[in-house]
Amino acid sequence: MINIAILGFGIVGSGTAEVLTENKSIIEERLGCEYNIKYILDLRDFPDSPFASKVVHDFNIILNDPEVTVVAEMMGGSHPAYDFTKACLEAGKSVVTSNKEVVSTFGVELCALAAKNGVRYLFEASVGGGIPVIRPMTNDLKSNKINKIDGILNGTTNYILTSMRDSGATFSDALSEAQKLGYAEANPSADVDGIDAARKITILAALASGKLADPKTIHTEGITAITSEDTEFAQSLGYTIKLIGHAEIRDGKFIAFVSPRMVPLANPLSSIDGVFNGILIGANMVGDVMFYGPGAGKLPTASAVVADIIDIIENMDKDAKNYTWTAADAEDMLPMDEYSCRRMFIFKGKSLPCGFKAAKFCNNDDLSAAVTESEMTETEVKTLKTQYGDKLVCVYRVL
Amino acid sequence: MINIAILGFGIVGSGTAEVLTENKSIIEERLGCEYNIKYILDLRDFPDSPFASKVVHDFNIILNDPEVTVVAEMMGGSHPAYDFTKACLEAGKSVVTSNKEVVSTFGVELCALAAKNGVRYLFEASVGGGIPVIRPMTNDLKSNKINKIDGILNGTTNYILTSMRDSGATFSDALSEAQKLGYAEANPSADVDGIDAARKITILAALASGKLADPKTIHTEGITAITSEDTEFAQSLGYTIKLIGHAEIRDGKFIAFVSPRMVPLANPLSSIDGVFNGILIGANMVGDVMFYGPGAGKLPTASAVVADIIDIIENMDKDAKNYTWTAADAEDMLPMDEYSCRRMFIFKGKSLPCGFKAAKFCNNDDLSAAVTESEMTETEVKTLKTQYGDKLVCVYRVL
Repeated sequence: MINIAILGFGIVGSGTAEVLTENKSIIEERLGCEYNIKYILDLRDFPDSPFASKVVHDFNIILNDPEVTVVAEMMGGSHPAYDFTKACLEAGKSVVTSNKEVVSTFGVELCALAAKNGVRYLFEASVGGGIPVIRPMTNDLKSNKINKIDGILNGTTNYILTSMRDSGATFSDALSEAQKLGYAEANPSADVDGIDAARKITILAALASGKLADPKTIHTEGITAITSEDTEFAQSLGYTIKLIGHAEIRDGKFIAFVSPRMVPLANPLSSIDGVFNGILIGANMVGDVMFYGPGAGKLPTASAVVADIIDIIENMDKDAKNYTWTAADAEDMLPMDEYSCRRMFIFKGKSLPCGFKAAKFCNNDDLSAAVTESEMTETEVKTLKTQYGDKLVCVYRVL
Repeated sequence: MINIAILGFGIVGSGTAEVLTENKSIIEERLGCEYNIKYILDLRDFPDSPFASKVVHDFNIILNDPEVTVVAEMMGGSHPAYDFTKACLEAGKSVVTSNKEVVSTFGVELCALAAKNGVRYLFEASVGGGIPVIRPMTNDLKSNKINKIDGILNGTTNYILTSMRDSGATFSDALSEAQKLGYAEANPSADVDGIDAARKITILAALASGKLADPKTIHTEGITAITSEDTEFAQSLGYTIKLIGHAEIRDGKFIAFVSPRMVPLANPLSSIDGVFNGILIGANMVGDVMFYGPGAGKLPTASAVVADIIDIIENMDKDAKNYTWTAADAEDMLPMDEYSCRRMFIFKGKSLPCGFKAAKFCNNDDLSAAVTESEMTETEVKTLKTQYGDKLVCVYRVL
């Protein structure tokens, strides 16, 4: 009998209890052993819940119970989630989590601590919600070097961008609608400013490179500046605008950043709409593979949490591994200024400044603009902006 | 040191040797042990290949070498591939394969034989080429009951359908073009008649249900009857035609079949074009997840083969499991006649027979047709066809 404790009985915590209960018979059959949710830690009581009798308010009850071997941390935020995780790992309990803030901030320390204590720290649900992506990336693509990751990693912003594109809504109207539907929070900053996506892309980048960057230090652009003209313009040229978490290994260094990008309609990420997520991985042998599915939600996210719990139970006493990460320092990373990629430039007027070759012309009358595409570094773009002033209307990164 | 033998030095076999060699240092680092390709079995010699010295012509050299513990069967066809696989498993060697014909025909026996001999039989590359799908489905979705699988499982037919849709080509022109590009074989029957997809969907259905159906007995419709009018008609109504391998678990029974289907543009499978494959899996907790990527090709398929080799090496001495399948008999399966799904009916003329409510009207002048959608079993459709004769122009299954 395996005893499990759940920390936090919010959306994902209660979903985890539900998946463990609803699918108990098939999961136990697959595991070949029984399990039991012994405790649920929360500040609140849930007298009407079928799990009411499991609820405790004191973390130490869980920490000091040697029967509890697997802990699901579903609290969100850094503290006390990080502190409780650390205490559990030190006490020889494996921990699974959906908490991208903790993983992206303290992942190096927590993975090492798990290894040191002969237990495991797993976090499939921290990226892509219910989509299996971390394990497929690290297990099933093990015969490959992963060169590049492009992910639609945040359902809220993808919902907003899809709605702006399909209904012509402004950013603020689309945001209000998302808030009404429960897809965006009252304070939407973590989503619309790209902070959530930044945490997720640093996790994916660490899985590919072994180096975890501080998500606060990577270039992070959200979608607040995107207008309905932008989305219309993209459409008319055969692109769609998506907020992309990008990571790339180039010349032995890596870069990770978040920004809106023009995604050509032939790219499979272009058709991932609404609250769905998709992660496109480029690897040296297989080429491009993509994982798609619900990037959030109670039961989908819990499905991934329980997949980690199953992995831990199945591999107990089998010397199963943890991710081995080190903290990325400046030398490991390609500076953003030196990062070059394909970009789309829009110049005011129907002609391009000399030296530029037009790729296409924009039909949008308001813009009356000439469009060109070129590969350029951030530094070169900055120079160009100074040089042409407001004749250079805007620059988009192309995927 | 792990010694590997490759049976068959064709496209996938030589790709497997290339992946094992090209990525040797990173794979060995991840494995924590070294490996060696000891033999390559082929009837031919390859004097100019870097692997020339590994080539042997006698299978018994491999079978009788106790140092060989992992065998990659890349021969294709049923015999001698099945016979060699059986001999290897009985001799205590694990076997990996991309051979869907052998897996779908002899999978029950070979999985059991592997288990009996304490070795493993793995076949990630048999479905979806390089796409990680079998392991994600069976490992990462273990917290779920899988209810439904819809897959674009054959790159050749998907290339032909995409080309018919995008260029208005006829089936035979698109097929010739695919043959010229090396995407279709001189005798294209296994692809265009749906036989290859049928083998793959029975494998996926077995992974979900534990029951392996004989692929020769499942309903298998190919794409030879699809006209450019069909693809144009689908486009005009907001659908795209795809050859779909479908499996479903319904009321404790399962069904698997292959047929062209009208896929709504909002479905992520609708945008999987050209030679790519995509597998959409519906599960009771996570909802729908999709795996996308190159469904064939030398290095992509080899990437999946090597993922299986890595899985075997990593889990040696860890009591790793094999799939446990039984042969599906008539009682396990929902008869095709009783299978109901949403269908699109096209009636000649601008009006529908009484009792039908028009969902939409087709703008295609050649058809001058009225369109309606309804959920119906195969038996009901047959009755309808008898009743309305050639007034009922056609019936499409809708995804």
